[in-house]
This record gives sequence, C-alpha cells and structure tokens, in this order.
Amino acid sequence: MATNSVVGVFGANGFIGRHLVSKLRGSGEHVVAFGREFPVDFYEAVGGRVETRRVDITDELETHAALQGITRVVQLINTSNPAMGNKRVTSDLKLNVIPQVSFIESCIMAGVKNLVFISSGGTVYGIPRQKPIPETHPTEPLNSYGLCKLTVENYLNMLTRGSELGYTILRVSNPFGPGQSNHKGQGLIPAVLQQIAANAPITIFGDGNTERDYIYIDDVIDALATCLEREPLKDVVNVGSGRSRTVLEVIETIERVLGRRVERTFIEARATDTPSNVLDVAKARELLGWVPKTDFHKAIQLTVDSYPFSAVS
Amino acid sequence: MATNSVVGVFGANGFIGRHLVSKLRGSGEHVVAFGREFPVDFYEAVGGRVETRRVDITDELETHAALQGITRVVQLINTSNPAMGNKRVTSDLKLNVIPQVSFIESCIMAGVKNLVFISSGGTVYGIPRQKPIPETHPTEPLNSYGLCKLTVENYLNMLTRGSELGYTILRVSNPFGPGQSNHKGQGLIPAVLQQIAANAPITIFGDGNTERDYIYIDDVIDALATCLEREPLKDVVNVGSGRSRTVLEVIETIERVLGRRVERTFIEARATDTPSNVLDVAKARELLGWVPKTDFHKAIQLTVDSYPFSAVS
Repeated sequence: MATNSVVGVFGANGFIGRHLVSKLRGSGEHVVAFGREFPVDFYEAVGGRVETRRVDITDELETHAALQGITRVVQLINTSNPAMGNKRVTSDLKLNVIPQVSFIESCIMAGVKNLVFISSGGTVYGIPRQKPIPETHPTEPLNSYGLCKLTVENYLNMLTRGSELGYTILRVSNPFGPGQSNHKGQGLIPAVLQQIAANAPITIFGDGNTERDYIYIDDVIDALATCLEREPLKDVVNVGSGRSRTVLEVIETIERVLGRRVERTFIEARATDTPSNVLDVAKARELLGWVPKTDFHKAIQLTVDSYPFSAVS
Repeated sequence: MATNSVVGVFGANGFIGRHLVSKLRGSGEHVVAFGREFPVDFYEAVGGRVETRRVDITDELETHAALQGITRVVQLINTSNPAMGNKRVTSDLKLNVIPQVSFIESCIMAGVKNLVFISSGGTVYGIPRQKPIPETHPTEPLNSYGLCKLTVENYLNMLTRGSELGYTILRVSNPFGPGQSNHKGQGLIPAVLQQIAANAPITIFGDGNTERDYIYIDDVIDALATCLEREPLKDVVNVGSGRSRTVLEVIETIERVLGRRVERTFIEARATDTPSNVLDVAKARELLGWVPKTDFHKAIQLTVDSYPFSAVS
C-alpha cells in the first residue's frame, strides 16, 4: 500500500538500505535515499533512478534540513559493529548514540510521524536465559554495539512520549543475502564466501557451535515495509527466523550449495559475543502479521548465486 | 567493619557524600574525599580532618591518577537532576554518561575491587505498573536524569564482566535529611523549608497528590556502608522507605513539626515526572540485611531541627 507521504531511508547505501530502497521503489513509494555517499553501483542495486541526498547525521542542522517534508523514516545508520567488542566504548557513545538521539529529536521537530528503527536482536539480550528469546527477556548486552542499540531504543521510548512521532523498533537477528559485503565485518556468510573465493581458510571464533538466528534479507525487508504501511507500534518487536543454527551448520550448507570445501581455523571465542541467540518471533506475527517465509537452504542458494566470485577471486 | 583498604568517595561534597564521609571517618575507615571543590563548611560537616582531592571526572588522566591505591569506590557524582526534564538530552549524554562510563573503565584499569554506584529508584522505572516497585519492574524512565542513570547501570554491568571490578547499584528513592540544600533543585523537603524560611509560597507541580518514597539520609548511608563492607553483589538493589507519601502529606508533616503554615501555589505537573513512585525493598533486606529504620515523622523533625532558618530568612 503506497501512500503519498514521503519515506526517508537513512543509511540507504548499506546492505539493508539498498534492498529496502529497491523494494519501496517497486511498490511505487516516494522514497528519498539518505547517506554519506552513493557510489555508481548503488543505482544498479536499487534498480534505477531514485532521489538521493547526502547527509551526515552528526551534523544537526544538516539532518534537520534533510528531514523537511519526510513523514516516514527508516533509520539504518550504524557506525560500529559487534566485532569491535568493547575497545571503543566511549567513542561509540559519542559517534553513535549521541547522533542517533539527536536524530530522534530532529525527527520530532520536523514532524516525522513514523520512525522505524533497526535494533539488534542478536546482541541486545546478551546471554539467553531462555530460548527462543522473547522481547520481554532481560536486556544485558555483552558488547558496545548491542548496548548502543539498546540505549537508543530507550531514548526513542522516552523522547517520543507525548510527541507526534510514532515508532517501531525491530530487533533484527542476523540478516544475510545478496549484496551483503564483508568490508565492515558484517556477518558470517559474506566472510565465508569471501574466503572460499580467495581459497583461504575461514577463521571461527570458538568451536563453531555458536548458535545464531540467520534471517534472509527479503524477510527483513517485508517486516520493514509492513512497519511503514501501518500505525507505529510504539513497541519493540523481534525479527528473526526463530530457528537456531550453528556456525558449522551454516558453513556446511554453503559448502553443500557450492560443492566446495573451505578450511576452518579455530581461534579463541570473543568474550563479548553471546554463545547462543535465537529469537521468539510470535509477537511480530501477532502485531504485524509478519512471519519469516524464506527457506534457509534456498536463501543460502540465492546468496551464493549472486555472489561475485569472479570479481574477488 | 573497617578494613585497611582505602575508600574513595567521589562527589564527596554533595548531600549524600558529606554524610557518607562523616560516617566512614567515624568507623575508622581510611577515606579519601574526591570532588571538584571543598568549601570550609565541608570539614565541619564531615566532623573534622579528612583527606580531600580535587578531581574532575571528565578529565580521564586526572581520574586515572586519582584512583591509584583506591580499592573501594562510591560514585555519587551527578551533573544533572530530574527538574531539568528533557531539555538537554544530548548534553546530558556528553557531560554525564560519557564521563561516568569512562570512570568505570578507569576503575577497572586502576584495579578497584568494589564500586558502589548510586542510581535513581525514583526515576529509572518510569510510570509504575505495580506498587511497590521491585527491581524486576520494566525500566522506562520519563526523564533524561533517570535514563542517564539507567544507561550507566547498563555500562557498569557490561564493562565489569570478566573484570576484577565488582559493583553494587543502589537505586535510591528520594533521600532527605540535614544538609540537603535547595541550590540544585534536589528534592521537595529543602524547597519547602526554604520557602518557609523566606515566608514565600511553595510551588507544587500538579495537585499535590504525586506520591514519592522519601528515605532518611541515615538509612541511605547504612545501605552504602553495608555495600562497602561486603562482597559486591554485581546486582541492582532498591533503597527506599517502602512507603508512599504524597507531596501534600510531606508539607503537612513539616508544618506540624514546625508549627507554621506555608502557602501552596499549584502549577501544571511536569510530563517528565512520574505521578507515583514507591520502592519494594525486600531484595535489600534479603541480600544486604538492610532495612530502613528511621521513622518518617522523627526524620522530618531531625531535618527541620538542623535547618539554618536564621541564616536564610
């Protein structure tokens, strides 16, 4: 359902951003893609012409100006990742949390009505006390990435009280799919594919039995699009496959699909990674009518098929 | 039980700090009082000579140097208060949360073993879903002050994992007692006393039926001293009277004790204040063996008796 209100996608040039812009274009939405840069392949990835605007959300005035006329916003910007552990905690607060909080204030001032914020279902809960993890589970992140996400969630909840700004927080598990790059240490699957392409061993933290909830990008985009179409929940919702898979299972699936083996190198697990994570997605089904649809094996197949092996090997 | 390890009290010149330093001196602890300044009346308030050191915790190197040789720390520093509402949210993050997080990192690096952090039982929970409020209640602060406290709690939990630094977080309700000043908008009782002294009306936000959990300073100091004497809980504990009292009840009690009336001026309630707050203190009894002891009427009497009416009227 396209409306005539404008959707601003912040962080549009990232993995999720490109898929989302492509989807919104396809459904006839008026979308504006915001980001720090838009390389040529951005336009290919999103399927053609789209309005783009450079914005650095650490610049309050620039952000405020950018938000004029935008009624719905998806905030995908991230300036850190879980692989950084806890080595740059205060700089994460300065460069990530403060700009995000300021961004929320700007959305309120600019009259935005619906903000969809992508949080991290894989890190905000910490070590699970039950599996799968419902949204009511205690939030005790082990790493700065997760705690920054949680902190922004808390500010979103607080600052929007009594304002016109509605929001939905999606705690997304481990998304994967075509176009996910390994440049920023984003996820296991592009890392494995890159190593296979380079004929190099893959480094595994721990014994390979770390469990994660891998969700295909199309399912994530469905959840995002649903949040843009409906009244904001003013609530937090898990978005995951609801299934747990070990690192070794994922590698084996890729190997099976590809018919190639990759060598494993095992190193010590990171203390700032939870050994296990799988999300309970019943609330998303109930409140958003959303369910994960893509079969894992098929999703890996699609991801592998689209991987530019010739370009990187 | 005094040990030969040194206790550092940060924010020693504040209301709670002065009472704590006085108590620790009295029990023979080796205490070092840290603060930005120590006026002459500090030494009177704490009962005599005590080692003082100026430190600004926004200065990381200074803080790190200050912590050398300190094994137990009480962190009482606050640079904002609930009355500020949500007008300076990002500046609160910069000036309050980041220095506090950096302070925790410094404590870990300096080998501190026991950190007692004073959080805010009156603000971290937000609007109560049950009364009295247990520590397991959702944390949805309505104001920046409460959310800064909650954020620091979360960082304390995360950063101390796998470190030598133990901690106890005390979520203190509304402390009052001799020496609490009205300069920084800290609490109802000094505000009422000041207005009585000045023969001026007291301004009440809302209809005066706002409920708070008022706890006498001696009881707070008992809880703090207990945390310094025992193994850190690595947990959060409410410290309150466990009794709810309305603003009007408090004013009436003061009037009864003093035999004077104060005029009330009612203005609109602040959206960033919760209408009601009273803490469940069963966990403190169970884990610390602590219970609030001081009778409210007697506590008000002690507070009124010590108030310097002649000095301010």
